[in-house]
Amino acid sequence: MMKTPLLLSSFMERAEKYFPNKYVISRTHTGIKRIPYSEIGKRTRRLASALEKIGMNKGDKIGSFAWNHHRHLEAYFAVPSRGAILHMVNIRLSEEHLIYVINHAEDKILMIDVDLIPTIENIRDRLTTVQHFIIMSDDKTLPNTTLSPVYSYEQFLEEGDEQYPFLHDLDEYAPAAMCYTSATTGYPKGVVYSHRGLYLHSMALGLADNLGIKESDIAMPVVPMFHVNAWGLPFAAVWFGTTLVLPGPSFTPKLIAELIEQEKVTITAGVPTIWIGVLKELEARDYDLSSLRLIVSGGSSSPKGVIKAFEEKYGIPFISGYGMTETTPIVAISSLKSYMMDYSLEEVIETRSKTGLVVPGIELKVINDHGEVPRDSKTIGELILRGPWIADQYYKDDRTTDAFKDGWLYTGDIAVVDQEGYVKITDRTKDLIKSGGEWISSVDIENALMSHEAVFEAAVIAVPHPKWQERPLACVVLKQGYEQKVKAEDLKNFLKNQFASWWIPDDLLFVDEIPKTSVGKFLKRALREQLKEHYSNS
Amino acid sequence: MMKTPLLLSSFMERAEKYFPNKYVISRTHTGIKRIPYSEIGKRTRRLASALEKIGMNKGDKIGSFAWNHHRHLEAYFAVPSRGAILHMVNIRLSEEHLIYVINHAEDKILMIDVDLIPTIENIRDRLTTVQHFIIMSDDKTLPNTTLSPVYSYEQFLEEGDEQYPFLHDLDEYAPAAMCYTSATTGYPKGVVYSHRGLYLHSMALGLADNLGIKESDIAMPVVPMFHVNAWGLPFAAVWFGTTLVLPGPSFTPKLIAELIEQEKVTITAGVPTIWIGVLKELEARDYDLSSLRLIVSGGSSSPKGVIKAFEEKYGIPFISGYGMTETTPIVAISSLKSYMMDYSLEEVIETRSKTGLVVPGIELKVINDHGEVPRDSKTIGELILRGPWIADQYYKDDRTTDAFKDGWLYTGDIAVVDQEGYVKITDRTKDLIKSGGEWISSVDIENALMSHEAVFEAAVIAVPHPKWQERPLACVVLKQGYEQKVKAEDLKNFLKNQFASWWIPDDLLFVDEIPKTSVGKFLKRALREQLKEHYSNS
Repeated sequence: MMKTPLLLSSFMERAEKYFPNKYVISRTHTGIKRIPYSEIGKRTRRLASALEKIGMNKGDKIGSFAWNHHRHLEAYFAVPSRGAILHMVNIRLSEEHLIYVINHAEDKILMIDVDLIPTIENIRDRLTTVQHFIIMSDDKTLPNTTLSPVYSYEQFLEEGDEQYPFLHDLDEYAPAAMCYTSATTGYPKGVVYSHRGLYLHSMALGLADNLGIKESDIAMPVVPMFHVNAWGLPFAAVWFGTTLVLPGPSFTPKLIAELIEQEKVTITAGVPTIWIGVLKELEARDYDLSSLRLIVSGGSSSPKGVIKAFEEKYGIPFISGYGMTETTPIVAISSLKSYMMDYSLEEVIETRSKTGLVVPGIELKVINDHGEVPRDSKTIGELILRGPWIADQYYKDDRTTDAFKDGWLYTGDIAVVDQEGYVKITDRTKDLIKSGGEWISSVDIENALMSHEAVFEAAVIAVPHPKWQERPLACVVLKQGYEQKVKAEDLKNFLKNQFASWWIPDDLLFVDEIPKTSVGKFLKRALREQLKEHYSNS
Repeated sequence: MMKTPLLLSSFMERAEKYFPNKYVISRTHTGIKRIPYSEIGKRTRRLASALEKIGMNKGDKIGSFAWNHHRHLEAYFAVPSRGAILHMVNIRLSEEHLIYVINHAEDKILMIDVDLIPTIENIRDRLTTVQHFIIMSDDKTLPNTTLSPVYSYEQFLEEGDEQYPFLHDLDEYAPAAMCYTSATTGYPKGVVYSHRGLYLHSMALGLADNLGIKESDIAMPVVPMFHVNAWGLPFAAVWFGTTLVLPGPSFTPKLIAELIEQEKVTITAGVPTIWIGVLKELEARDYDLSSLRLIVSGGSSSPKGVIKAFEEKYGIPFISGYGMTETTPIVAISSLKSYMMDYSLEEVIETRSKTGLVVPGIELKVINDHGEVPRDSKTIGELILRGPWIADQYYKDDRTTDAFKDGWLYTGDIAVVDQEGYVKITDRTKDLIKSGGEWISSVDIENALMSHEAVFEAAVIAVPHPKWQERPLACVVLKQGYEQKVKAEDLKNFLKNQFASWWIPDDLLFVDEIPKTSVGKFLKRALREQLKEHYSNS
């Protein structure tokens, strides 16, 4: 067979050649634009050509610092189709992390949205590799900025050649894009996506048994384009000639609902927070969302109430997609097998709320010390992954050895498997407590504690123990009015009804508050640090 | 990204692991069997293990000579999943061609259906490489045969290990399967399919914009499994956990209609002859075929009347798939773009009757001396193809240079392109006759006729036929002195010793001369024009 390499270069060409009149609906800072693929193709070629004129070479990293819109989409294709690498910088990183990732990736050129200029201006002096800035504004006028040398994107395109060719002789393993993922501690870790990986992931997204992205779809990635390739939707959509709706900067649930209604969106994807917001919006106002054939939720697990509301009240299939920055991302989805179609609504929602079934092309195992765990929905193990769109390392990072072992990615996610082979993530390895060689789920104990009428919040952490290596320690905030009325022993007795005795925390501390991260998650690291001497002192 | 090779080895494993209770419905010589994938998986592993015990090594060719049934399916996976190569021998070849392909491929082991034993017995003495024969009968009893050493398939499986592992460390470019395709002149040409090619082709078949094969489908390949991998359906179906219906030996249109109705088949594929037969059956008897979501017709173009009858009268989408033995096969399908949904029925049928739109992953061009032809539905050019599931050579064959040039496959098909990019094949560069989806070489029959002592010249042309699409018609000029002494029947008997019966021209006309080109070549186009009414008048 021909050794034709699997490259992104052919994707935009297919859209130009066979779907020139299909279009991208792009919301920018100044309004909604409809741009046919014929035009997107020419602009992408212009961008590629102009970038090379200011020094983009094969293998160079080009950073984007932008929302979801057509210019970002053009960068998605212009850069890799000429053998360079698009680094999609997460606009929500702290300044310190921003400086780190841009310098660590060695971005040569940075393409920036108008409203994000101040962020880059603030750190400009500490960026050691960036040589050019391109401002993705809606007209040719250059906004006021201290960045230099700087170009207006639309003016910049005029320097380019609209017939500039894409490269077809690249190595399919060549890098095409990269993202950084937050680490538990330390700087973000870089993940590099190859042409081959993104090509195969795009093909997987088109599988009828996966998301089934197709030409007749109107696809709206709400998930940011700086977040794991917007889950790969932009790549697949362009390849298949799918209409794309890109919701632009600073959108609201109201805007999302309006775009779905107005543009007759058929498939959309985003984190649960988005769908919780949209649900509220649907309760407040009437929208016709009947065009939707699928909502894909990912990033964290979706509350059952949300799934139920979409499925039952609005009749919109709502599935979970599972993946990580390291996995391009989609490796499992919670769609139903054919013989589950006669499930009751409760069973449907139960299945939809799981992490899901692995997609064709990826191998997934949940393992403990004895090998793959039984399919009993109870035995926990670590979820590991292998396949052609799974990273095999972090970019120039020693932490590679922690996650990549024996050809598998160790996800750090703790899961159970049901008898149908559906996986459900229950924990992160770092939230598990290993006591005497056995695992205890801190999250399960927390949930149990928080179901007690007296408990406002509870965090369970591992503390070192001379005999058991680790033991669980519970930190509990009581509801107002319950102080002094509830004792540690009461709560331990409460837990004893639900867990094996060795799961019960030996100690239970009443605290005034649980330290939290900026997004409201328990900052267990701080608690662990604070209480690491607890057992040695006790 | 991980360099995980793209191998067929993972396909059966996925079916075993996630769809053990889905099944294969297999019609054999003795009836219909339903075998769950859990069982198919074990049997496949047994077969792989037992084949190695009698000498199958990596790179060996194992021939199959069989209809569509579960044992053939097991061979589809057992052989390549251990690094050997399944050669699917076309059971309709003439004895001379059979001997050629089996010897040329160097088949080491031959797996044969019970009713096909005599064909192999007849040529056994001339097979130079085959060391073992396995008879795919329904029970362990070995039928009477002169073949030796010979095994009964079911007995043979008992020698194998049902937990035998498949290989995951093969090179993805390693050969997995092979088929031979009829040549214009001379012996059939071998095409070798790599793991990578079959893997990507399977993925392509699952694309929602292609055939969209999925787990909930009940797929029935009527196209033979010895004919370009049954268009790849068995590979894709097993990977996706799709229910497979394999219609077995010597089926009739009645049987096909019954299977669709009884098994609630959702997608089926075969040559136009099959669908013409099924249409007649539908006119004669009532069947409920409402489960069908798609009929895929390929091998030659479908008469518009057939498309119209299925689409309009029975409401079943009927599309053309285009490909060749060299292309695994599917490279284009005549499905509609989303904005064609408001086409009139006439326009729909017009589009459906075209060769179609190239599928994602393949590059297609129609070229003449000036490059790609304009999209005017008029200008003809040769259709050329490039992509990861296109062959790059014929197996050990000098004719490679005729078809494979500059990294493209020159198909020999002449086509036009419409403004939407849909291709329509109008002609062939060579003079093959396509009868019931199978090719007949006019040149081979001509050469045979001209070797008869009474024949001066002979030209064989294709004439339209209501059932078989095309049938060969021979025009013969007798040598002086033989007029009136030799009858058509004599020459047909003469041919019967050399060709399969369906190759023999139904009619043989004695003419005074064959029209010729200036360089003395037969002007077959003129003959075809002159005789195109032959069958409709006869």
